[in-house]
Amino acid sequence: MPPSWKDIRAILLDLDGTLYTAEGTIPGAVEAVWALRTRGLAVRFVTNTTTRSCRALAERLNRMGFPAEPAEIYTPAWAAGRFLRQRQARAYLLVPEGAREDLEGVLDEEERPDYVVIGDLGEAWTFERLNRAFRLILEHGAGLIGLGRTRYWRAADGLRLDVGPFVAALEEATGQKAMIFGKPDPGFFWMVLEDLGMPPEQVAMVGDDIEIDVGGAQAVGMRGILVRTGKFRPADLSGPIRPDAVLASVAELPAWLG
Amino acid sequence: MPPSWKDIRAILLDLDGTLYTAEGTIPGAVEAVWALRTRGLAVRFVTNTTTRSCRALAERLNRMGFPAEPAEIYTPAWAAGRFLRQRQARAYLLVPEGAREDLEGVLDEEERPDYVVIGDLGEAWTFERLNRAFRLILEHGAGLIGLGRTRYWRAADGLRLDVGPFVAALEEATGQKAMIFGKPDPGFFWMVLEDLGMPPEQVAMVGDDIEIDVGGAQAVGMRGILVRTGKFRPADLSGPIRPDAVLASVAELPAWLG
Repeated sequence: MPPSWKDIRAILLDLDGTLYTAEGTIPGAVEAVWALRTRGLAVRFVTNTTTRSCRALAERLNRMGFPAEPAEIYTPAWAAGRFLRQRQARAYLLVPEGAREDLEGVLDEEERPDYVVIGDLGEAWTFERLNRAFRLILEHGAGLIGLGRTRYWRAADGLRLDVGPFVAALEEATGQKAMIFGKPDPGFFWMVLEDLGMPPEQVAMVGDDIEIDVGGAQAVGMRGILVRTGKFRPADLSGPIRPDAVLASVAELPAWLG
Repeated sequence: MPPSWKDIRAILLDLDGTLYTAEGTIPGAVEAVWALRTRGLAVRFVTNTTTRSCRALAERLNRMGFPAEPAEIYTPAWAAGRFLRQRQARAYLLVPEGAREDLEGVLDEEERPDYVVIGDLGEAWTFERLNRAFRLILEHGAGLIGLGRTRYWRAADGLRLDVGPFVAALEEATGQKAMIFGKPDPGFFWMVLEDLGMPPEQVAMVGDDIEIDVGGAQAVGMRGILVRTGKFRPADLSGPIRPDAVLASVAELPAWLG
């Protein structure tokens, strides 16, 4: 018998495009999050942002009216910090300031690190930094961790390279595959589930990205719910990924869960 | 009946590792090149160098005692220059000074180029330059040309990223495959053959790199001769690529051809 929606004990929510957009909060989203919590569901937030810390993201959500603690927010930097601290690993951190806060307690080490961690450095990328990362991986055997694999994003002045192309450059140079922390990487979702202490059958991910949110969640056995807000396009529904549910917006979720 | 070595009318020679190394010329190499020419074979030089122009490479070879004209030397920049001039294409040139000379006559254009051409810029790489290349390809439909796909090289102070990782970064960012000019790309070898005016059955490539020189040549139907100088390692002979001949050095070539 397939698992029923009655078994769901936790809801993972994407942020941008699901709870809010550049225009503000999605109508009904704040009420929906309150309603989910009221009925006893665990509510968590899963985002690929690396320029804001969990603490800064929680403050931002709170200002918008969403109840959220920093410990309820999962980011690539949170996952990398957890991974590295568990191993007491030293790391060369090529990450934006916002990510650095969630990597607190990780031993920052430029000479003999166990891992090189790269995020969206933007203008702070230099040949010297990329070449140092390359040498640490190829010559000293450091592992490569990417805070996501986003290819680019739209800044005020136009498109800008994100972390993905730099991950690709280091993979090509070293012949080593990067570990990616962030959606849709299965390892990242497993860390979230481990932190929640729940099996995937009891968890549903809600997001506006058919591949990253829905496909990523389904790949580890969670249910994936697509919302028609944010970057949603009708063509998303004719691809190979079949959402477990499609809702007009997150506002419909409490009623839909019944 | 398989083609005989008697059909060979041209010899393509790799430079570094085949004619000379950091220690100087390979013993007997100068005499070998003279001997090949004396018996009426066309001798050409095929290298992936992008930091020296064909003219500068010819001067360098001449100083070492090798007879060589600039027009007898094939480099990635030569190929890109030929390709772009034939099409009267405008290009955004992210290449070292040495390559620029062989791209003379190409319309340099930063705003609406038909192609972005990237070489080993080293320290001159900046986020702004890489991001401009990215936007020109993704937003304005420019093609991507890489002057080779070498991953790294050994400089005096250690390993340094070459052009390959930056090609990979732009491919990942844009979803577009680069055109690669340089060994072992088949298109590059075909341009050399076209310039020679000979079919591949009449041409042999001699080099110290089992993949780039031997495998690349064989892939277009030329013969590939491996020399045990330069970067040669015995393990090269247990891989999937079978050289048509293996010689101790290029000095043996004239006698071996018989």
